[in-house]
Amino acid sequence: MSTAIIGLGAMGLGMARNILTAGIPMTGYDLSPDARQRFTDAGGTPRDTPEDAAKGADLLLVMVVNADQARSVLFDTDVARALAPGATVMLSSTVAPSDAREIAARLAEAGLIMLDAPVSGGQVGAEAGTLTVMASGPEAAFDRADPVLDAVAGIVHRLGDEAGQAATYKVVHQLAAGVHLAVAAELMALGSKAGCDPQTLYDIVTNAAGNSWMMSDRVPRMLVDDPPVASSVDIFIKDLGLVLQTGKDAGVALPLSAAAYQMFTAASAMGHGREDDSRVVRAYEALMGQSLKDRT
Amino acid sequence: MSTAIIGLGAMGLGMARNILTAGIPMTGYDLSPDARQRFTDAGGTPRDTPEDAAKGADLLLVMVVNADQARSVLFDTDVARALAPGATVMLSSTVAPSDAREIAARLAEAGLIMLDAPVSGGQVGAEAGTLTVMASGPEAAFDRADPVLDAVAGIVHRLGDEAGQAATYKVVHQLAAGVHLAVAAELMALGSKAGCDPQTLYDIVTNAAGNSWMMSDRVPRMLVDDPPVASSVDIFIKDLGLVLQTGKDAGVALPLSAAAYQMFTAASAMGHGREDDSRVVRAYEALMGQSLKDRT
Repeated sequence: MSTAIIGLGAMGLGMARNILTAGIPMTGYDLSPDARQRFTDAGGTPRDTPEDAAKGADLLLVMVVNADQARSVLFDTDVARALAPGATVMLSSTVAPSDAREIAARLAEAGLIMLDAPVSGGQVGAEAGTLTVMASGPEAAFDRADPVLDAVAGIVHRLGDEAGQAATYKVVHQLAAGVHLAVAAELMALGSKAGCDPQTLYDIVTNAAGNSWMMSDRVPRMLVDDPPVASSVDIFIKDLGLVLQTGKDAGVALPLSAAAYQMFTAASAMGHGREDDSRVVRAYEALMGQSLKDRT
Repeated sequence: MSTAIIGLGAMGLGMARNILTAGIPMTGYDLSPDARQRFTDAGGTPRDTPEDAAKGADLLLVMVVNADQARSVLFDTDVARALAPGATVMLSSTVAPSDAREIAARLAEAGLIMLDAPVSGGQVGAEAGTLTVMASGPEAAFDRADPVLDAVAGIVHRLGDEAGQAATYKVVHQLAAGVHLAVAAELMALGSKAGCDPQTLYDIVTNAAGNSWMMSDRVPRMLVDDPPVASSVDIFIKDLGLVLQTGKDAGVALPLSAAAYQMFTAASAMGHGREDDSRVVRAYEALMGQSLKDRT
């Protein structure tokens, strides 16, 4: 069995490292020569085109940024034709449920099967091989992907036999992640200007009913000047955009998600789009006329 | 030293039980004869008026619903005059920082000192004696309240020597608690109508980056028909109202808190104000035209 990966950013490279460590050889491709070099350093076999990476593979892991990139790499190239007949495409990018269904249908036309397999856990989980994988697709796709799932996941949720089911859970999950991050920024903004010591406020809230995973994880990054980019502001504009699209498709009004989306949009408009997503706090700082550090 | 309590609702009664269990005798008052009876059953000494309960007490714990009730019980009666000279009033209701400062100033005019001491942990924490207490006030107030704090608290945060400081931390904390609860309802609404199994969605989100204390605690109550009232929808209208007032006073725009406040307001308008606060999900159900149970 032959395995390939396309998309060697922070997430894809972390997953690739754990797959290679598990003794599964891989070919791989990324637009960035630096990413291909890091893949080589991890023991992978880079190729110069996506078709070459995919050639003859029985399993192709796709970990690009969004659905447009996934469509582009699968269908605007000869990747779908380069794969082994009946191969499985494991799509781990976060995409709208409707996009997951459409991509699966186009793969089916080419005689390929898809595992809809978005992940949660971020770069830390990707590096550690402890991702939460939400997965749906035919039994055969699960069978084919099994060794790779073992290598990258702490837990695998089997959510049905159709593409789009796992994407739905992932997008709905992102509602909470994205809004909670904006809540953390809103809380720190109010606290700092109302006279609370930021570290004391953080300690109180994270040990009480106001805690969230995002509060614990991101507030310390709000309190430093240039945090490393674990995930960017623009990624949450994408993910909350998928949340709002899913709400529109399903017929569910989402007032909190809509408000949070505006705050990420503002932070990006201010020039922080490619910075760490904790920089959403910059939009609150702009609105209150002072920074977290200038507390009164 | 003589100790009294006014306000024997779910929170006050739980705290009283732990104080009595710690061997501190107490007089107490509540408008409700049922509450006074439960206080008697717990070993307390009920009185028929707040003045009688407060008479000669060195420490008075006030656990009423809001600042208006606190002002009414302290100043529209003879309670302030009935206390021992120089007595300490421990105000544990959630009130605006400006209200805490004003009440402390009026008590000071009467020769009394105040411990601004709101709590977090809900009825469960009150019953267990594991509340988180946020406290600020003069050293003498802390000294006087010390045995009572020991009896009711898992942790006491000392947040300064002025009334209003602790109230600020508590109100800012409630921003996160209230918005996170509305987020949980928004997530369950989207998930259920987009086709997720509610229990599976809950399991995924609470074990990933989307988790919050409120998500873990309140979603199971959203999924049953008539949950016991741990805290009501109207309490969060009050608390998020204090959040918005504090934002207005400090000059901080709070778009997520404002949106969450509207959802609690709607749930109350629908007739759920005195029901469990998890019923905020009813506002989402109204907006999506189906209940969590009618999932598609």
